[in-house]
Amino acid sequence: MEALPSKLLERTVEEFSKLPGVGKQTALRFALHLLRQNKNDAATLSAAIDQMLEGIKFCKHCHCISDSDVCEICSNPKRQKDVVCVVENIQGLMAIEHTAQFTGVYHVLGGVISPIDGIGINDLTIAQLLERVEKEGIKEVILALPTTMEGDTTNFYINKQLQRFPVSVSTLARGVAIGDNLEYADEITLGRSIVNRVPFDSIFNKQ
Amino acid sequence: MEALPSKLLERTVEEFSKLPGVGKQTALRFALHLLRQNKNDAATLSAAIDQMLEGIKFCKHCHCISDSDVCEICSNPKRQKDVVCVVENIQGLMAIEHTAQFTGVYHVLGGVISPIDGIGINDLTIAQLLERVEKEGIKEVILALPTTMEGDTTNFYINKQLQRFPVSVSTLARGVAIGDNLEYADEITLGRSIVNRVPFDSIFNKQ
Repeated sequence: MEALPSKLLERTVEEFSKLPGVGKQTALRFALHLLRQNKNDAATLSAAIDQMLEGIKFCKHCHCISDSDVCEICSNPKRQKDVVCVVENIQGLMAIEHTAQFTGVYHVLGGVISPIDGIGINDLTIAQLLERVEKEGIKEVILALPTTMEGDTTNFYINKQLQRFPVSVSTLARGVAIGDNLEYADEITLGRSIVNRVPFDSIFNKQ
Repeated sequence: MEALPSKLLERTVEEFSKLPGVGKQTALRFALHLLRQNKNDAATLSAAIDQMLEGIKFCKHCHCISDSDVCEICSNPKRQKDVVCVVENIQGLMAIEHTAQFTGVYHVLGGVISPIDGIGINDLTIAQLLERVEKEGIKEVILALPTTMEGDTTNFYINKQLQRFPVSVSTLARGVAIGDNLEYADEITLGRSIVNRVPFDSIFNKQ
């Protein structure tokens, strides 16, 4: 990319282009967009970033991003505190919250075990999960990690660690997506759906 | 999009999603990316934005973004001051600079006449261009605006205004792109290239 006529602009472009999926051209578009606005409107972005970096916390129970020491979900008296859903990250948590089908609480791992990315057991909040299970009288742990190899590795590890506690461990049901035509379902999912077929009543009488 | 567990995060996501082409999901990815870094690294973006908004100027000659009152191009003694290339915006300027074929100076219009977008003559730096032509002894004005309807409208207007000054007005050559197969050239460009055909020597003896 050709040299920019302003070092100040150049630095902003450089910083924007560190964001995921943002190249130099997009970063320049972002910076010029801010310059086209009036100064106060444009400054709200940097103010929001600064306040977020300064003020954000992680819930001391579930390790989710939060504005206070205990997040809204963990401090909600209506949530079942003895059912914990283990998610990879906040996006996973939000996806499950969005279904409005879960009334328990969460535990955010902060990733999944991935040797290639250098993420090991100690980079995740697994020890904290085990401590919660031991001390908070948790009855059920639902493993809701991505259905990838890394997610399954993490599932297996956590499941093994939980064996020493009197807690039931479950995981997300896997199978053909609802509304899918079978010809478009991938082979692995469809194959496992046949092998792990379930009683008719367990699906249709629940709905 | 489901509610975020943090108001601070939500505000940052909202501000990021005001950037062009950035939706809520991308904005969330940006914000979480910043949160994953250590605080000092993450704060460089907002610092760069603030310093840019605070410090940036517009060159008083060419109206290009600049760190000082007169930009590097206008203050460069090696640039021909009596040949002015009129561009729509800084991206246009950078594109021409990148060719390394132009040794004159620029004039940044700040847009092109576009009634649909509410951009009229007074929103652009046309009056300042005329003043420069009048006072700075400019010999040639090269109109290098986009070859769109709006660009051409602006070309015609500026050309008409320049008639009262002893200045020659030129515009970018238009025709088939170099390296193009004719079957892929668009009809309008190819049609005009035939009607406005040029002497063989004017192309080949120049190279």
